[in-house]
Order: sequence, then C-alpha cells, then structure tokens
Amino acid sequence: MRLPHVRDLEGVDVAVVGVPTDGAVVFRSGARFGPEGIRSASVMLRNYNPILRVDVVDKLSIVDYGDVPTVPGSTADSLERSASALAEVVNAGVTTLCLGGDHTILLAELRALAPVHGPLALVQFDSHHDLWDEYFGQKLFHGSVVRRALEEGLIDGARSVQSFGIDAIPYEELAALGPGRFSERVRGRVGDGPCFLSFDIDFVDPAFAPGTGTPEVGGPSSREALTYVRSLAGLDFRGFDCVEVSPPFDPAAVTSFVAANACFEMLSLLALRR
Amino acid sequence: MRLPHVRDLEGVDVAVVGVPTDGAVVFRSGARFGPEGIRSASVMLRNYNPILRVDVVDKLSIVDYGDVPTVPGSTADSLERSASALAEVVNAGVTTLCLGGDHTILLAELRALAPVHGPLALVQFDSHHDLWDEYFGQKLFHGSVVRRALEEGLIDGARSVQSFGIDAIPYEELAALGPGRFSERVRGRVGDGPCFLSFDIDFVDPAFAPGTGTPEVGGPSSREALTYVRSLAGLDFRGFDCVEVSPPFDPAAVTSFVAANACFEMLSLLALRR
Amino acid sequence: MRLPHVRDLEGVDVAVVGVPTDGAVVFRSGARFGPEGIRSASVMLRNYNPILRVDVVDKLSIVDYGDVPTVPGSTADSLERSASALAEVVNAGVTTLCLGGDHTILLAELRALAPVHGPLALVQFDSHHDLWDEYFGQKLFHGSVVRRALEEGLIDGARSVQSFGIDAIPYEELAALGPGRFSERVRGRVGDGPCFLSFDIDFVDPAFAPGTGTPEVGGPSSREALTYVRSLAGLDFRGFDCVEVSPPFDPAAVTSFVAANACFEMLSLLALRR
Amino acid sequence: MRLPHVRDLEGVDVAVVGVPTDGAVVFRSGARFGPEGIRSASVMLRNYNPILRVDVVDKLSIVDYGDVPTVPGSTADSLERSASALAEVVNAGVTTLCLGGDHTILLAELRALAPVHGPLALVQFDSHHDLWDEYFGQKLFHGSVVRRALEEGLIDGARSVQSFGIDAIPYEELAALGPGRFSERVRGRVGDGPCFLSFDIDFVDPAFAPGTGTPEVGGPSSREALTYVRSLAGLDFRGFDCVEVSPPFDPAAVTSFVAANACFEMLSLLALRR
Amino acid sequence: MRLPHVRDLEGVDVAVVGVPTDGAVVFRSGARFGPEGIRSASVMLRNYNPILRVDVVDKLSIVDYGDVPTVPGSTADSLERSASALAEVVNAGVTTLCLGGDHTILLAELRALAPVHGPLALVQFDSHHDLWDEYFGQKLFHGSVVRRALEEGLIDGARSVQSFGIDAIPYEELAALGPGRFSERVRGRVGDGPCFLSFDIDFVDPAFAPGTGTPEVGGPSSREALTYVRSLAGLDFRGFDCVEVSPPFDPAAVTSFVAANACFEMLSLLALRR
Amino acid sequence: MRLPHVRDLEGVDVAVVGVPTDGAVVFRSGARFGPEGIRSASVMLRNYNPILRVDVVDKLSIVDYGDVPTVPGSTADSLERSASALAEVVNAGVTTLCLGGDHTILLAELRALAPVHGPLALVQFDSHHDLWDEYFGQKLFHGSVVRRALEEGLIDGARSVQSFGIDAIPYEELAALGPGRFSERVRGRVGDGPCFLSFDIDFVDPAFAPGTGTPEVGGPSSREALTYVRSLAGLDFRGFDCVEVSPPFDPAAVTSFVAANACFEMLSLLALRR
Repeated sequence: MRLPHVRDLEGVDVAVVGVPTDGAVVFRSGARFGPEGIRSASVMLRNYNPILRVDVVDKLSIVDYGDVPTVPGSTADSLERSASALAEVVNAGVTTLCLGGDHTILLAELRALAPVHGPLALVQFDSHHDLWDEYFGQKLFHGSVVRRALEEGLIDGARSVQSFGIDAIPYEELAALGPGRFSERVRGRVGDGPCFLSFDIDFVDPAFAPGTGTPEVGGPSSREALTYVRSLAGLDFRGFDCVEVSPPFDPAAVTSFVAANACFEMLSLLALRR
Repeated sequence: MRLPHVRDLEGVDVAVVGVPTDGAVVFRSGARFGPEGIRSASVMLRNYNPILRVDVVDKLSIVDYGDVPTVPGSTADSLERSASALAEVVNAGVTTLCLGGDHTILLAELRALAPVHGPLALVQFDSHHDLWDEYFGQKLFHGSVVRRALEEGLIDGARSVQSFGIDAIPYEELAALGPGRFSERVRGRVGDGPCFLSFDIDFVDPAFAPGTGTPEVGGPSSREALTYVRSLAGLDFRGFDCVEVSPPFDPAAVTSFVAANACFEMLSLLALRR
Repeated sequence: MRLPHVRDLEGVDVAVVGVPTDGAVVFRSGARFGPEGIRSASVMLRNYNPILRVDVVDKLSIVDYGDVPTVPGSTADSLERSASALAEVVNAGVTTLCLGGDHTILLAELRALAPVHGPLALVQFDSHHDLWDEYFGQKLFHGSVVRRALEEGLIDGARSVQSFGIDAIPYEELAALGPGRFSERVRGRVGDGPCFLSFDIDFVDPAFAPGTGTPEVGGPSSREALTYVRSLAGLDFRGFDCVEVSPPFDPAAVTSFVAANACFEMLSLLALRR
Repeated sequence: MRLPHVRDLEGVDVAVVGVPTDGAVVFRSGARFGPEGIRSASVMLRNYNPILRVDVVDKLSIVDYGDVPTVPGSTADSLERSASALAEVVNAGVTTLCLGGDHTILLAELRALAPVHGPLALVQFDSHHDLWDEYFGQKLFHGSVVRRALEEGLIDGARSVQSFGIDAIPYEELAALGPGRFSERVRGRVGDGPCFLSFDIDFVDPAFAPGTGTPEVGGPSSREALTYVRSLAGLDFRGFDCVEVSPPFDPAAVTSFVAANACFEMLSLLALRR
Repeated sequence: MRLPHVRDLEGVDVAVVGVPTDGAVVFRSGARFGPEGIRSASVMLRNYNPILRVDVVDKLSIVDYGDVPTVPGSTADSLERSASALAEVVNAGVTTLCLGGDHTILLAELRALAPVHGPLALVQFDSHHDLWDEYFGQKLFHGSVVRRALEEGLIDGARSVQSFGIDAIPYEELAALGPGRFSERVRGRVGDGPCFLSFDIDFVDPAFAPGTGTPEVGGPSSREALTYVRSLAGLDFRGFDCVEVSPPFDPAAVTSFVAANACFEMLSLLALRR
Repeated sequence: MRLPHVRDLEGVDVAVVGVPTDGAVVFRSGARFGPEGIRSASVMLRNYNPILRVDVVDKLSIVDYGDVPTVPGSTADSLERSASALAEVVNAGVTTLCLGGDHTILLAELRALAPVHGPLALVQFDSHHDLWDEYFGQKLFHGSVVRRALEEGLIDGARSVQSFGIDAIPYEELAALGPGRFSERVRGRVGDGPCFLSFDIDFVDPAFAPGTGTPEVGGPSSREALTYVRSLAGLDFRGFDCVEVSPPFDPAAVTSFVAANACFEMLSLLALRR
C-alpha cells in the first residue's frame, strides 16, 4: 500500500509489523520472506473497500513499522525478542497487524497483547489446529503454538473459534455452514469482548495460495476465504496477523496477493468501527 | 491451433493478429510476450466446440497474420502504427481477433474498426474499468483506454457493457447475476447492432490466470469466465481481443491455456452465425 | 507417507509402485518424474481419513515397492517390461497403486491384473477418453490406451465408466450430475464385480494441477475431484493408478499434493472394505 | 532470426528444421520443446559475425522450414518419418541445420544426407560419446546413436572427431589442448572431405546451459564452446545440428540463447565458404 | 545494505535512487522491478571491501532515497519527471547511484548532472553501444540513449570509453586487454576530469546474470566484470548507475546479487577518494 | 547413485546420511531439502572417476542410510539428536558423508567423530569462515559453528585449513595460488593425521550454484572447485560433508548436480586409499 515506513507512533492507529521467522516449520521453510512478499504485493491494494463500503485510509492512520528482530536457530529466543519489540507498539495504544513468518509468531503477539487487553478470544483461520503438544520433544513449533497460548492464559478458550481446513474438522463442514451461519456462530461464541484474528494462508486451497509451508489440498478459494473474514465485521479486534506466506514457493506471487487482500479486509474490519 | 501463417487475406474469414505491447502497464510488464504464449498454448485446441455444438474450423477460414509493428517507449506511436496495420486487415473484410499486449491495443483495434463498422457496442470482461482519465499526467495507458475510445467516438457508450472484476462493480454482483441473467442484460443493452468483445485475462482469478500484469484476487474461475463468454452467442461481433497475458509470470503456462480457450470461444461465437 | 521401501511382499496388502514413462505423450513430457514428485509430496499425508472415517495405516499394510523398469524410446518395450514386473506383485496377492508415468501404463497394469482377476470394470477420471485408434500411425500412445485394453479383453466395456473432463462429454455434464448421482450411476453400471480405478491428473483444472502434459481448462477443483473419488466407496477395486503428473511444470508442487491426496483417497476406499 | 517460414526451397541455401523428439532420453525429458525455445531466442541474433567477419544473411538465403513429423512413443518410427521428410530438403540441394529434439535425430539426419553426400566425417561436441550399444535392451536411444550411425555406414569413423565433455575423455584434456591445437587436430583428421557438425548443448557447463536432459558438471563456458565451433572454419560441412535443449529446465531461457548462438556460428562457417 | 530510507539530504554523501522504467526495451521487459530486486539482494553486502581495502560505510554517509516518479507508456515523459527529481538530489551536492530501470535512465541522470558538473566523461560497461539513431522511428529507446546524450552535449565524447560485450567491439578484445591495461587505457582517455560510470548488467554473461532484457552470450564472468570496475579506482566519478536488471527473468536472484556487488564496488571507488 | 537404502551397517565402508536442517541460517532457508535434491541429482553419477582413475563402487561398499532426526525450531536440540544418531554409524566403523542441511550440522558430525578419531584437522571450502562468536545473542547458527567446534576441542586448529570464498581471505588469493600450490600448502599443514572435509556449496560462484542460502558473487566455477577437492588426494579423511544446498532456489537443479559431483570426488578420495 506504499505505507509510510516510520517508527514514530504518535497519532498512529495501526502498525503493520513484519516478523520474519521460519525456523519452526515442519515441512517447507521460506516464511521468513513473507513480510517482503506481502509488502511487495500490497502496492496493488486500493483505499476503498467496495463490499464493506469503507475507506480504509480515510478512517485509519496506518504505518509500516518494519520488521521486529528474530533469532535464527532458536524459536524461544525469537519469540522473546519479537514479543518485547511488539510490546512497545501495543503499549503505545497502536493496533498491530503482523506479517509472518511462521505461526509461532502468534505467541509473541499474544504475549505483547494480553498484558494490555487481557486474555483474547482467538478467531483462527487455518488448515491445522496447531494444538499439538510437542513434536520431536520440542514444545515450540508452528503446530503447538495455540496450546502454548492456552497454557499461558493468553487466549480465552471458551470464547475462541478455530475454522480448520483439513486437520481436525474438515473444511467440508465449514463449507456446508457458509459465511452467514459461520458469522452467527462466531458472534455467539466470541461476544463483545476483545479478540484476535489469526489468518494462516494455508487455510486457502494451494491453487490460490501455493506459496506456503504445509499446503492442504481441498480448502476454500481466496474469494470464499475473504468472505469468511468479512463476515466477522463488528467484532472487537485488538490484533491481527497473516502468517505462513512462503515466497520461494510462490513463483507468480499469487499467494502474496491473497495475503495482501486478507490484510486489507482486516484493516477494513477495524475501519468499520471508527 | 497450428494455423497457417499467411499475409494473403483472400477468402479469409478471421485473422488472428498479435499486438505485442506492454509499455503502458502500471505494475508487472511482460504482456509483449502474450501473443507468443497464446499461440504456443493454442496447439492444444480442437476444431469442435462440444458445448456450443459448432465446428469452428469447418465454418471459418482462419489464419495467423503474425504480429503488427509496435514501438517500444511510446504508446502513442505504437497505437498509430498498429492501428494502421490492422486497418489493412479490416478493410479487406476480415474479422480480427487480436492477441495482446496490454489493454491499450483496444484503441488501435477500434480506430481500425470504427471507420468501417461505425461506433461499436463494447462488451468488456475485465477486473478494471479502464476509465481513468490520466495517470501521472499520461493520457494513454492501460487504465484510460476506454475513456479515450469514448472521447474519440469509437464506441457507443449507450449500448456498451462492462463486466468488472473488482474495481468498480465487484465481481460479487456479476456472480450473483449468473450467466443466464447476465446474457439477457447484455442482449437488452447491446441489441442487434455491431459490437466488439474485449477479454482482459485479469478478469479471471489469479489462481487460474497468474500470468498477468495487475492480478485481482477474487475473480471467477476459468470455467465460469468461459461460460460468460459463451452466453453472448447471437450478438453481432465485428472484432475480438484477448489482452494482458504476461508469460514471464506464468511458469506452467496455465494462463496462456485459459487465454487460448477464451479465443476459441470467441471464434465459436462467430462460427455460430455462419 | 514415509512408507517402508521394500521388495519383500510377505503380509503386504498394498504396494505403491512407480512406472516412470513419458515417451508416449503428445504435448508436454516430464511424467517420468511423477513418481518422485508424488512420493515427495506424500510426506504431508496423515493416517486417518476424517471424511471417510477410516484409519488407512491401521487397516492396511502398505509398502513402497520402488519403480519398475521402463525403456526410453519404446512404449511397446516399456509396457512389456513393466507389465512383467507388476505381475510379480499382483501374483503375490498384493493390490497395486501405480504412480505414472503417462497413461500408457494402464495397459501394463491391466495386463498384469486381468490374468488374475479377469476383465475389470474400468472407472476412469480423465479429461480425455484415450480411445483414439492411432496417432501418426502409432498404435501405442497415451491417447489410445483404453482402446487397446478393450481390444485385448482386459477391461469389461459394458461395466466401465469414463468421467471425462473436456474431450467427449464435457465436464459440464458431470458437474450437473454431482457426486451423489454420479455415484449411483457408476454403481448401477459397475455392480459388484472387480474393478479398476484410473485417475488422470489432467481431469482436475490446471489451476489446481498445472503440472501435467495435456492440461484442459475448465475441469473440477481438486476438492470436487476428490469428492468424486470418495463417492466410489464400496466398489471392489483390484488396482488403482494416478497418472500424468509432470513435476517440471509444477513449480510449487501443488499438482503432486493433489495426486498424493487422490492416492490417499484410493487407499481409503480399500481400507473401508477391510 | 525472424526467418521467413516457408516450405518452398527454390533458391534456398540453408533450411532450419525442427525435429521435436524426446522419447529416447534417459533422464530429463523436454527436448521436444527445443525447436520452439531456440527459435524464440533467435530473435536476438544479428546478421554480421564480428569475430569471423562475415555477414551471414548477406551470403546465405536461409529459411525456417518448420518442424518435420515425429511419432510419440516410438523412436524407430520417429526416425523413419523425420529422415524421409529431411530427405526432401537434402535432395533439393539445401543444407540442413536441425534443431533437436534429443540426439537420436542425428540418425535421421545422416540417413537423409549419406545417400547424397556419402559417408560423412562427424565432428561432435558432446558430454557423452553416445557409443553405447544398448540400454535396457533398447538399440535406439540418445546414447547409442553414434554407434548405430557407424554400423549403418553413414559416418566415416576414420575421419570423425568427438570432443567429449565428461564421459570418455574428460573435458580437462580438451581444455588443455585449447581451440588452436584442437582445430589443427580436427583438420588433420577430417581433411577436405564432406563432414557433419553435431553440437549437443550438454557439452556446455550447466551454469551456462541448465536446460538439458543430462547435464554434466565441469564443461566449458559458452564463450569457450563457441570458440571451439569457430575454430572449425574451412571444413566442408554438409549438415549441422544443435540438440538436447530442454526449455522446461531453462527458466530464464539462457540455454536457448547459447543454442541460438551456436547455430549462428554454424551458419557463419557455411557463409565463409560462399 | 539495510540503508536508512530517507528524503532528508542534510550531511548525505551518496543517495541510492531507484528509477523503475522498462517501457523502452526492445526484447524482455521487467527492468521496472530492478530497484526492488537489487535492494532485496543488498542485505548480503558488508561494510568493508577487502580487495580495495576500504570501509564504505565508515567513509560515506549513504541513504536510500527511494524511487523517483516515472510514467508508464511514455519514455519522454518518464525522462522529464525523473530528471527533475534527480536534479533535486544533485543540486543538494549529493552523489547519485541510480538503480534502473532500462538504460534510457542514463539520459535523465546526465540531464540532472551536466548543469552542475559540466559534460562528463562516460565510462560504460555494456554489451551494446546504445548509439543507434532510431528504432521504428523512435528517437528514445534503450539503444539510442548514448547518441542522444552526445547530441545534447551531456557527455564529453573525446574523454569517454565504452567497453562493449558483443555488439561493436567483441568482448574478446577486452578480455585480451585484461583489467590492468584496460585501466591504463581508460585513465589515459578520461584524465582527471569529472566522469560518470554506467554499468549495464547485460555486460556480464547470462550464466552469471540471466535476469536482463537483452542477454548476450559470451560475456565476462561476474568476478571478471567486478575486477574491471575496481580497476577504475582514482577516477573522479560524479555519478553511477546499474541498469537493466530484470527480476522476472532471475528466478534464483543471482543477477540482483551481481548488481548489488557492482554497486558496492562503485561505492568503494567513491569511498577511496574520501 | 541409486544406492541401496539400508540401515544395516555390516560390511559397509561409507554411509551417506542426510541431515535436513535449516533453522539456523541468516538469509535464505530451504537447505532442509538439500538431501532430497542431492540424492535426486546423484542418479547421473557414474562408478568410475576418469581423472583420479579409480572405480568408486568397486573399491567401496556405499549405502544410503537415510536421514537422521532433526528438530524444527531448535538448533541445539537438532544437533543433539543428529549427533547421537551419527555416533551409531561412526561407532560401527563406517565413514560418514553427510548431506546438509545448513552448516551447523558440522558440529553434530564432529561430536560423533572426535570421540572415536580424536580432534580432526578441518579442511573447509566455504565463502564464509563461520567463526562468528554470536549473532543476535545466539551461540549456535551457521556462522559460528567452527568457533564452537574449536571451543569444544573437536578440531585441531593448528592443522586446519579454511579456503574461503569472500568473507575473510578473498577467493582472489586462492585463485592466485592454484590447485597445485594449494594442495602443497594443505598437506604441509594437515600432515598424516586424521582429517575432515567440509564443502559448503556457497564456496562455488552462484552462476554454478544458485541454490544456496547466502550466495557470494565472485567464487570459483564448479570445475575449479572440484579440482581443489581432487587436489587433496592422499589425506586421511575420516568424514565428509556437503552443506547449504537449497533446492527451492535451484529451479534447474544445477546446484544439486554440482553437490552430487563434489560428493563423488570425496568418495573418490576415500576409494584411492583402499
């Protein structure tokens, strides 16, 4: 979106922040180039959202905060450093939209957000539930992050909703539900409390989003996925992310375009409440 | 389609003509290789259209006229030269199917066609309306070409229909309409007069057509897009084009296959009237 | 699936066998790398099929038998050698799931299977009927293989069903039928007798499966295609294949993922009968 | 080179002919797209050769004869058909420059040339000697073609020279020789008699020519390879080929550029004798 | 190099400026993404140049000035706008290092530099002399830019040196000269006066730099090319550019790495004089 | 090399072992697919080394041991697990040739080897010295591994030789030395004691080996690099590795071919001593 690249948060509503990690993925790496890919694709975005009927740039002051530091070879250290850098943004009263990186960054985000906003309701679009306990004895990897967040009290499990692609509840069920009834169900569960939206690009079918680490065949089209995001208008989001975009597996950059559009819909959800 | 590559227009019904420009695009270039890509993919086409039930090669004498000249670095000069080369084909009573190149070639086509057929009704499939007035002070670029054509009196605005993907009327509306009611609406507006069909490949979702300059997430599948083209059977088309195919962003050539199929449907529309 | 790579067939239910041919294709070659591509993608598969509700690894003893020998430059010799190698597996009472290679391998499979199981009902998902008689005077190529199998009495034409994408019956008709009524129609025709399932990846739309030799625009999505495969639960399959995957045209490996999932559904069909 | 695409051989000196085979390769296929790739790259060629100081277009009347027919799935049939098509060109007194296709096409060329010119001295640049007797019992594949040609009496073994990359005589020896002494050695052996130049692109190191079926690490750079070709000025060549270019493994088309330049040097060798 | 991205030129020695044009190329476009590609690759650069023994970051204050505006579809308008934006930088006493874009940007640079520094000696590494008068009647394209600059009195022809790859003087001659004698010859001609260094990436062989519009087979390796650049130490450069990098044809980004290194050597030449 | 894939080490001389890590790289990831890429390319290798004049397969019993376990997200845990798995092979008296993975695997190898063979002389081909102390506070990453190995007493610094590409001693110096004098220098330093050969593919210029994490422009060609490896014939190597091959950045697989050849030369060094 050719956003101003600044670190001064005075008067800022939303900061787009890159968290370029990929050490903790189990299959294809490359998500560390996700922020670069999404930023590059975002020049195609516009200011006005014709479906939600809101001018995002008019309603919100948005900046590109750049990337927070990460540590190759240690997920634990990466989380610590990036959580601490994100906390500076969150403490300044700015909403964060983080560009992954792999899904472990969710833990860093929630560690920065929960001290300010309390435990958040998690609304997660993903092809995997990321509720594994461990993997090869490793507690921190992109498939265990939600379990860790629950254990740390960062998310409010009772109000959270996971919309899986494949792994646990097949996407078949979500498709049968449709955006309308899905929206109702989420609203009934999340309520008016503060919540967090996490969008794992592997939720989308690999024809539409090939550039990701653990693609799952049989997911929604990008248009369907964006409709699900838009169906959440009205919820009180305090943070957002879009994760697992891997440009080395995205030769025509179509995945980055989908991710940039998902980010635009998230910004629109926020703009609608201003 | 392994068409004969000739310049002799005696007895010819349709000439497929390449117009390899891409200087006037605002994002990804490469459309100058569009004609080469579509021709290469067209070897997979067949003679018989099983859905429209017409044998295209039996009904029509089709030739590959090669490429008309263009001028790198000046859209205005490119248009002048290519319009003049196209006029030779049009004046010989031959219907043109032009392979772009970027969308500015529409202006060259209409400048060749309007003197013979009068102002044409434009039926345009596109993710953008191309009605910008100017861009960086530039009157001629791929986003302003329809406005220029209206100003020059080459198209009949009252009878024209634009089926947008994203920019103005979201594709959501077109999808809600469906091919049947879309067809009725177009017929009601276009009537029996002469018309022109312009198919910008970015109308199709980037999962199906990644190889284009300004991809827009959330468009129709290629099957849906071809259905919309077929729904126009019966209109009196005097010219066709398929534009904005960019092979450098099309590693598996799928975009060129979609474009070749769109061209085949256009030829079928013509064959049905013979 | 990180299957054990063994040649000892004692106690084995299913052997996954590569047949790396591509000499007999008419357009893009590369299918000889299909087995390697599908195996590489199969590490993403799981044991449990949540839609068919069956644990494949629990029910079946599956091994990776490696590749059978083929002969570059002679389809006839390739068929002879691979049929003879496959016969060893079939004669040991093991069900084969062959990874192509181009579609000519079907003939080798049927020549190994028919002596044991009698003429089989063929259920074929494909964008082409492969019923050509000859091509450039050549009797054996990937478009004539079904005709050859009929002539040799390897398949029972009266009980066979071909679900075409484009060539003969447009996919439009299959789409109108839907998985439910398709399933009924197949059952009515195939009955309780032994049958064979052949899945040509070009049945799937090139947006979902670009890596193939003769892509046809306008086919089903991968999710739709897998639904058709699952709709065949209950039939008595004696052999399976997944053919025409061409990794050189599959830069993000999405085609191999679709193929691996199709193979998983086939294994699930078998597991359901144990 | 934007050559005229004609079949009329009246007054023609050289015909560039595509022979799109790849069924007989042992590793990566795709050479069937070699003629298309080299033609596409040839638009960058010029008329004048500044090193050999000759204007190729001025001295020679060159045409693009298109592709001769081949038969997928049978090398033997492909050779028969293409040899017979090439014979028409050779019999018209026209020198052929064939674009492969895999190296088996050499046999078709020699079968067309030897009846007119007698057994030819073969000068071959290649990373493999192609003297295998058989492979999996197959007499005709790209590694046995030279042996077959010797057996058929098409080449004069005593006057032939093979400049291997890796397989038999390492390129190390050729590199130590250098173009000057190499040239002397070839002249001493070939003499004034009629000869044939066969350039297998895998002679060049894969950094310079990645797009080929059996790349061999450690070969000459493209500049070095072209120097070796130029060093043959003065020999009496009656035919040329450039084989084993495989565009699917050539993402930036650099291999096709090298091949197009090698063809240009061959044409220059011919032009120098006019 | 992770340079600060600022527009404030106070105390700045060098500004790296992107000029993203590619409308005026005759073959492959895509150079408009050159600045993005080179910036992305530059994160691999270091501060210290071990061969020239100078710490670039220590000696120079360098900033990333971002891109100057360009106009798709009109080279003339692009030049006007970018020249005027560059003039602001030059007039502030800052040395410019421009990242192309195609070679027409040289004219914009010289139009900004000559009013301040007088006619400059041009030292040009290129595979083409860019001295064409016109092309399809077009005065401004990437092959005529040097002639235009001479006509406008922006460069001092008598003190200029062009080191061609292929077109006029073959690279063979430059290779025979070697960096040492080349350096002497340049110094003898350029003298102590102000000069400009233009590095067209197509000077380098396509094995090392495939991502460019008009690749020429047979050029120097990247190591050789960088040696030629370093051999110019001591000259009084007032401006630099690196042009014709085209990322869509650079799948592994190696061209951008070479370009980033060439830029680093240019900065080192400047740092040596501080 | 189509090696037998076994875990039984009875009578085995050499085990080829994959160590698929890439969490600890600072730039482009993807080295976890290195073992798969090198194995796939190794089918092109032969048994006989014509330059060293030794039949590798005749002299040595070689097996493919598969991959040892690694842990995504923690380099420390990965090293521990893979070192322990490698110790089983080393303790069985088998020489290891490890396929990386990133360069941190060197530490796992040395931890398995040193208890058996004592501190080893390290002969390292690399573009980086990997002697950093820490990076972002992280002790274990691919740039600090040699320092860690020295601290742990696994290598004998006084007898070790590092042949750098760029970082510390420019490749310029090594190039000036040449393989002959390099070989002498290494022999003088390493002596008759046990040693280890580590080959980081980024030692080779990116034109020849683009598929790596931190490419450095200006390195040796693959032929030159292999000559340096061969120059070490006679040393008493107890282990080998080839690291940092990243297939996602290697579209034509040329990097894997270079790596496979480097492994073949290592095996030849060993075979020469039998």
